[in-house]
Amino acid sequence: MSARLSSLEDYKKILDDYDTWLFDCDGVLWRGDHLIEGVVEVLDILRQRNKKVVFVTNNATKSRKSYRSKFDQLGVEVHVDEIYGSAYAAAVYLSSVVKMPKDKKVYVIGMAGLEEELRDEGIAYLGGTDPNDNTLEPFDLSKFTPDPDVAAVVCGLDMKINYTKLSKAFQYLHGNPDCLFIATNEDSTYPSAAGLLPGAGSVSAPLRFALNRNPICTGKPASTMVHFDPQRTIMVGDRLNTDILFGQNGGLKTLLVFTGITSEEEIFGPNPSPIVPDFVTQALGDFRIVAEKGL
Amino acid sequence: MSARLSSLEDYKKILDDYDTWLFDCDGVLWRGDHLIEGVVEVLDILRQRNKKVVFVTNNATKSRKSYRSKFDQLGVEVHVDEIYGSAYAAAVYLSSVVKMPKDKKVYVIGMAGLEEELRDEGIAYLGGTDPNDNTLEPFDLSKFTPDPDVAAVVCGLDMKINYTKLSKAFQYLHGNPDCLFIATNEDSTYPSAAGLLPGAGSVSAPLRFALNRNPICTGKPASTMVHFDPQRTIMVGDRLNTDILFGQNGGLKTLLVFTGITSEEEIFGPNPSPIVPDFVTQALGDFRIVAEKGL
Repeated sequence: MSARLSSLEDYKKILDDYDTWLFDCDGVLWRGDHLIEGVVEVLDILRQRNKKVVFVTNNATKSRKSYRSKFDQLGVEVHVDEIYGSAYAAAVYLSSVVKMPKDKKVYVIGMAGLEEELRDEGIAYLGGTDPNDNTLEPFDLSKFTPDPDVAAVVCGLDMKINYTKLSKAFQYLHGNPDCLFIATNEDSTYPSAAGLLPGAGSVSAPLRFALNRNPICTGKPASTMVHFDPQRTIMVGDRLNTDILFGQNGGLKTLLVFTGITSEEEIFGPNPSPIVPDFVTQALGDFRIVAEKGL
Repeated sequence: MSARLSSLEDYKKILDDYDTWLFDCDGVLWRGDHLIEGVVEVLDILRQRNKKVVFVTNNATKSRKSYRSKFDQLGVEVHVDEIYGSAYAAAVYLSSVVKMPKDKKVYVIGMAGLEEELRDEGIAYLGGTDPNDNTLEPFDLSKFTPDPDVAAVVCGLDMKINYTKLSKAFQYLHGNPDCLFIATNEDSTYPSAAGLLPGAGSVSAPLRFALNRNPICTGKPASTMVHFDPQRTIMVGDRLNTDILFGQNGGLKTLLVFTGITSEEEIFGPNPSPIVPDFVTQALGDFRIVAEKGL
């Protein structure tokens, strides 16, 4: 059963108990292009208390640098190091966990943001935004020479997905069981400003099906994404099956807000979700009570 | 346990017992561009005995008419009515089983052969080879007006698959639970002359994943594809998980040949496949024994 925060003491205790605050962004900090009320003040409260804040996003089409401009536009001050994206997570996974040798390369299904993160980690890549791979011309397998240095395929949301990219990625993975298969995230849909579209998980679905093989997923809800002291870390999110599950997979406490996807009905209704956050509150701005009444 | 045909009596009995002979093509009649020995003679034997022969193919990129040219090139005489393709099966399913009203339309992910079969059945369609849908330009959902007459999405192998087509198909299916979702076939891979490529099932995989919904499949191994008297019909194929399973799903007897994908090891080895054909023989040409020694 989730505890509903309400009194000054409830909010103070949460602030005292956790040093690291992980935030999902859309539905927690903003909705589309509108900042949610009280967010700037609550982030100020956290920073005044020397809390570490980390903004976790599955959006692999943007690098952390370009994702920061979203914060800038909305007047929220953040440092690039505070943003933890699934594209960055994939790049760090290859450079720091797998420790891929420097002479090896990655075949990319994905967009400029994913390439930028790989580049920043010193990882060579093929595919991605290369015009030769962004084509609807027929793919001629007999004229394709695989690069023997490709040691991984990384797949993120790619709005220029096509048969040539899928076929090349398939060749690398099918022909070489040692070739790593990495997905930035497996969201089935992508919430664009105008509505739902197929998500990153739908872009990797052809490869999963053709190969009968599942990728290593570096985004939410994979627990590999962020490592902090779980005793002192809380994940704040609006989606049960990504944000809250991600927190729980990492052994973290979780706080659900109702400013995004999940409704109160899903938590307190007659058929509650099996994914149960530790705490719920209406909106992140509720923590302003501590500055208004507390200290 | 599969019965291995060997004596003149074995082959005569099979010929006597079955009036309708369904054939998979690649691996049974030909391999790539090479006719398998004895095929023309055996088809002659069947026709002389007034057997109905049907050539069943999951290749939905070609219409039956264009598929016939493959037979012509190899010197095998067939009539268009004897060819039963998964694209044709999808069109017939809509026209004869669902009886889709004439003012309704289909959104197509697929190639010219699928469009030709729909046209021949009098079914209106959108998408497919339309240049507006064969683009890598960004898809702008806010500028997309769904056609309210679309009552089905049909998905086959499409080597020009792209985000615009996937997004439009997703909108039709996600926005309208009554919209039919039909796949010509769900082969994970496509055996091109130069090697394996992602198959039709990989092209529909993004929609299956984004929607968490499975299509109605009209090709092998779906039993909806062909309707004959199962007591007097035999399916001849080289693949266990499509051809033989397709026959079994339709309640037909099955004959496996070893001129294609499946090896004798998979049937008679220490770890046999759970899919067990009724009969096996080395090659279709083995039936020539009836003309040579019999009658």
